[in-house]
Amino acid sequence: VPNFGVLLTVAYDGKTFSGFARQTNARTIAGELDGAIAVIDPKATPVRGASRTDAGVHARGQRVAFDSDKSLLPRNWALAIGAQLPTEIAITRAAVVAPGYDPRRHALHKRYRYLVLESPVRDPFLEGRAWRVPYRLNHVLMQEEAHALVGEHDFAAFRGAQDERTETVRRMFRARVRAAVDSRCIEIVVEGDRFLYRMMRIIAGTLVDVGSGRLEPNAVKRALDTRHREDLGVTAPAEGLYLEHMELDDEGAEGWP
Amino acid sequence: VPNFGVLLTVAYDGKTFSGFARQTNARTIAGELDGAIAVIDPKATPVRGASRTDAGVHARGQRVAFDSDKSLLPRNWALAIGAQLPTEIAITRAAVVAPGYDPRRHALHKRYRYLVLESPVRDPFLEGRAWRVPYRLNHVLMQEEAHALVGEHDFAAFRGAQDERTETVRRMFRARVRAAVDSRCIEIVVEGDRFLYRMMRIIAGTLVDVGSGRLEPNAVKRALDTRHREDLGVTAPAEGLYLEHMELDDEGAEGWP
Repeated sequence: VPNFGVLLTVAYDGKTFSGFARQTNARTIAGELDGAIAVIDPKATPVRGASRTDAGVHARGQRVAFDSDKSLLPRNWALAIGAQLPTEIAITRAAVVAPGYDPRRHALHKRYRYLVLESPVRDPFLEGRAWRVPYRLNHVLMQEEAHALVGEHDFAAFRGAQDERTETVRRMFRARVRAAVDSRCIEIVVEGDRFLYRMMRIIAGTLVDVGSGRLEPNAVKRALDTRHREDLGVTAPAEGLYLEHMELDDEGAEGWP
Repeated sequence: VPNFGVLLTVAYDGKTFSGFARQTNARTIAGELDGAIAVIDPKATPVRGASRTDAGVHARGQRVAFDSDKSLLPRNWALAIGAQLPTEIAITRAAVVAPGYDPRRHALHKRYRYLVLESPVRDPFLEGRAWRVPYRLNHVLMQEEAHALVGEHDFAAFRGAQDERTETVRRMFRARVRAAVDSRCIEIVVEGDRFLYRMMRIIAGTLVDVGSGRLEPNAVKRALDTRHREDLGVTAPAEGLYLEHMELDDEGAEGWP
């Protein structure tokens, strides 16, 4: 059993990756992290990720842990691993935790952000980083719709067909729609205890469909009641989604920075 | 003589381009624009740019004009050209002007923005889009330094060796340093009537050198007095520079949007 656990906070631009989870013959976030860590300690375990993001999805606050027998300061782990990674991935924090620490099991809550660019023309600085819709959206209707998500509900309607979990009750702490500072984007921010598969992309697509008038208001309320996926809007594309932040119940005592 | 002039506002992520000006065997902004316009009108003139940006420099408010015999609405020019361009370039506005209109000769003022990321670790979303400095900067000293730029001065010290203009008096209207909203960047914004070659990058490098303590305060004042390039700081890298906005004295009557 290795002596140390290391918990990292990872940021990445997901555009050129086939998602977080390891795959043979595909460039993935977990694969790149394992490769970078192996340069420093070839005997380190593979990373255990807190959240599996899909292809094209971004993160500012992904969390991963691995075990090693090497005793390095958190700062040195962060800088050494970062130096081995491609520029689309960065280590923004490191901490020492117990070996075997699994960030997925310690997750208290997650915050997702979804960026929508409302514009008839593209923005070169948001290519692959926001969903562009070429029409006007009613932000007030979107905010009202988002508000209906807050609380403890059965979100069975809010998941992709691949999700086969039987327990679909989740608690959302916060959901808001606002103009992003410094860009023509609107951002949808949702914070909850756990999320179902594609849940945030279904929320974003539903809010945009209500905002554009393609879907009647109160779609969220209806779907929470009927539990039918068809009462909601489209699944928004991966490119606008950011895993923004995760709160874990054990962050490690010695952290950097 | 063609019948119509078309004036475009162009935004681009300059990372993968060898600058604005046409070159044989290199991917340039002007070359891409000419190619896209030729699809719509093979007899259109090459574009006349308002400002030659260097390799790696970005723009949100570049202006270019060309002439054509085709009578299209500004909206249709913008969307048709945009559809032919790579995703790193976008047409954000179009207007009809007199044939032969040269945006360079009509420029009243320009605004540049320079982004500095103050962080020990990289930000995947700012790769190629900000200059990362791994140490703390004194923002108050930087703002004081910037303030000394405002007014009409001889900026002979503030230019690259390649600039051989004899007339080096310029007027700066505004210069400020502030925390960028929504990121850990600081932005340096300078607005002036015209700029010398590499002037904005020398200003940014000087402000950062004063902010980090590598250069004594009042470097700007000294250099305005001595006219010596050596009294200033480094030339900041291209990647943090944005040609943000240009005001022209004739914007065209019929514009879109």
